[in-house]
Parts: sequence; structure tokens; C-alpha cells
Amino acid sequence: MKATASQSKSPAVVLLSGGLDSYTAAAIAKSDGYALYALTIQYGQRHVHEIKAARAVAKALGVVRHLELEIPLAIFGNSSLTTDIPVPKGRTITHGNIPSTYVPARNTVFLSLALAWAEVLSSSDIVIGVNALDYSGYPDCRPDYIKAFQHLATLATRAGVEGAGMSIQAPLLLLSKADIVKRGLELGLDYSLTHSCYDPTPTGLPCGQCDSCVLRAEGFSQAGETDPLTKN
Amino acid sequence: MKATASQSKSPAVVLLSGGLDSYTAAAIAKSDGYALYALTIQYGQRHVHEIKAARAVAKALGVVRHLELEIPLAIFGNSSLTTDIPVPKGRTITHGNIPSTYVPARNTVFLSLALAWAEVLSSSDIVIGVNALDYSGYPDCRPDYIKAFQHLATLATRAGVEGAGMSIQAPLLLLSKADIVKRGLELGLDYSLTHSCYDPTPTGLPCGQCDSCVLRAEGFSQAGETDPLTKN
Repeated sequence: MKATASQSKSPAVVLLSGGLDSYTAAAIAKSDGYALYALTIQYGQRHVHEIKAARAVAKALGVVRHLELEIPLAIFGNSSLTTDIPVPKGRTITHGNIPSTYVPARNTVFLSLALAWAEVLSSSDIVIGVNALDYSGYPDCRPDYIKAFQHLATLATRAGVEGAGMSIQAPLLLLSKADIVKRGLELGLDYSLTHSCYDPTPTGLPCGQCDSCVLRAEGFSQAGETDPLTKN
Repeated sequence: MKATASQSKSPAVVLLSGGLDSYTAAAIAKSDGYALYALTIQYGQRHVHEIKAARAVAKALGVVRHLELEIPLAIFGNSSLTTDIPVPKGRTITHGNIPSTYVPARNTVFLSLALAWAEVLSSSDIVIGVNALDYSGYPDCRPDYIKAFQHLATLATRAGVEGAGMSIQAPLLLLSKADIVKRGLELGLDYSLTHSCYDPTPTGLPCGQCDSCVLRAEGFSQAGETDPLTKN
């Protein structure tokens, strides 16, 4: 359901990581007229810069409420984002493999938590900034996956029993990183608030070499724009 | 995939609440030859008796590992199991409504976390004790829901990318509570270790009146057995 300015705003739960993508997806939902309820998950990522960025982004978006949840995914291990496995440098999906930065079932856990909040808010809309084009090859970023979660979400909730549906909105799903940057800048977003790097310096500066940094740099470059995070 | 005694045991992640159903489902998986990895979620339920029961049950089952995760679902509110909303007494789905004991998206969150662990363990099997016959009318206990999660789980993971599948095993799905009790007793289970009540006394005794107590009592009665928890 798309809200319009003439209606009272419909609530949407937005997964907000502090990265460029989720900020842009949330801003698109806002421009579509939704009242944003932002959910940030501390899942044991090795650095806190993402969380700080999420707070700044939530403030800039003027969300109705911002919840931060601690979900100890690191207990399961097996990802370079939550353990001592080194973060790989450079693009990592050239051979179609899933890189070590993949956190098992992360998006499923995040969407499930968003679903819990959406149900309590009587919201039928969840917004997630996944992208299946310029991405790191994670299985839970693909269009079929989003479609399957939407089907599950409808069956899982009161909405399903009562015959209504849930909508998983992934407005960036098929955009290039350059198009995401362009769209965000059209919406007036301040990307200096965001954090994308998988392996930042202790003070939070991007490494410039991990998959996420490389994708971000290519996006700004192909959009003909300068990334405020790397401007000297 | 069903493991047999002649093979080395396949790992299965089992959601273990400390209740009668999950204990029985886990025991069935064990008798099928799986090595059990038990996952118990502290999600803000109002009493800790469930968690204590889960520990006792895990020990009795001889699980390979028992993880307890704290997941703050109570932050979303709206359930009598996690907030001050009173727990209703008596059977609650006589008019097809969903009772206040429903915790929004609980099984979706739990299955997602089980999926994360299963993926790390290279396990393709998740066991859950949901039941769609003698149950409280929750949307996330229905066969269509379980089928949808299995589809999602396959798409969400490395297994999906690599062409394998995930299996969500719900061996109690279509059994009556009496048949569950009979099956468990055949397997030699000690139901005095379990806890089913939604609203126990401070010392952990069942209230005897909530939906869960009523269902349990009917199950033992129809099976012609005595519940060790209510034996004088």
C-alpha cells in the first residue's frame, strides 16, 4: 500500500544499518509518504561505526521511532563480519562464490524482527535496502528470496489469517550502485552520515579496499559524483 | 535427509522451549538418528521456568550442544506472554480469533535463528515442535506456514545457491495432543522435566487454567495417561 500526502501516513518498518543503501531505501519510502519506524540490529559486527551511522541517519530522516536490538548472531560464528576471520580485500564474487563477509541467515533474522514490529504496529510494509546487482553475492539479497519472504510474512501473521497481505519493499533491488547514489542525491541525502566499510580503521575511516568500499567507490564514480566520505 | 544408525549422525538444529511439544519433537529427531543441536530463545517471556525446563530437557536428550540466546522480542510489546497483558484462562480459539498469548512473528524469528546456526553447522535439518491440531490458533503453526519457511530457508542460504535444500521438520504438525503424549511415552520421555503453563505460580507450578494447561491436560487424559506435573 502506497501512502499519499493527503492521507494520514501509513507506518513502515525500515531496516536501517547505517549504510548508503538502507538510508536511500528509507528515504524513498519517506518520499512515498510513509511514517518511518527504523530498526537497527547490533548483531555482533566487529565495529560500532555502523551503529553510530544508523543513529545519525535515523535522525536525518526524521523517523517516528528508532529501535536498536542486540541480537547475538556472532555466537554462531563463521563470518568475517562477526569473528576473527580476515575481511577479504577487493571484489569477492568474481567466481560466483559467497564471500566470508556473508553472515548466515542475516537478512532472514532481520526481516523476521521487522515483521514482529510491523505486526505490533499494524503495518503491512517493511522496507529493506537489499540490492541484487552491485552486491556481494549473498543468497539473501536475490529477488526470489524477497518474494519468498513476502509470502512467508503474509502466512506468518494475523494479517495472513485475516486475509490481508504483507509487503516487503526493496526499492533498490534492481538498481545499479550508481543509480542508487543518483536517486539518493536527488532526494537530498547527506551520504557523509553513512558508513559502508566492512573493515574500518579504529577511528571509523573506510579501508577503501574491501568489497563494500570498492562497490561504493564505483557507484559514486559511475554516477559522476564525489563520495563525501573520501573527499580530501 | 534422514540419518541412520549405520551412518555418522547428521546434525539437526532443534528449537527447544522446555515444553512438552518441543521435547517430543526433539526426541523423535534423535530416534531418527540425528545429532541434536538445541537452541533455546529467551525472548522476554514473563517467567524463567521455561528456560530451566529447556536445560533439563536438553540434558535428558543428550544434545551435542545447547545454546541459549537472548532475543528482546518484548521490546515490541503486544503479547500477554511478554508484557503485563493478563494471560486469558480457558480455551481461547473457540471463535477462531488469535489470543493475546500470540507473540508476533515468534516462530519466524526462532526459525530464522535456527537457520543461521544450521547454516554454520552445514546442517540441512531444523526441527520444530509446532502443532496445528490441538494448538492456540497462532498463524505461524500452520502447515502452509512451515512449507513457506522451508522454501524461504532454501533460497536464503548457501545451500540454496549450491542447489541443495533445507528441511523444516515438524513431526507433530498433524498429531493430536494425545498422540504426541503417547509417542513421547513410547520413546521413554520424562514429562516431569517439561513446563507448558503460560502463567505459572512464582515457584513454577502450572496454573491449570490457561490454554496451554487445558490442552496439556486434555492430551494426557485422552491418551489415558497421568501428567507427572499434576500427580499428587
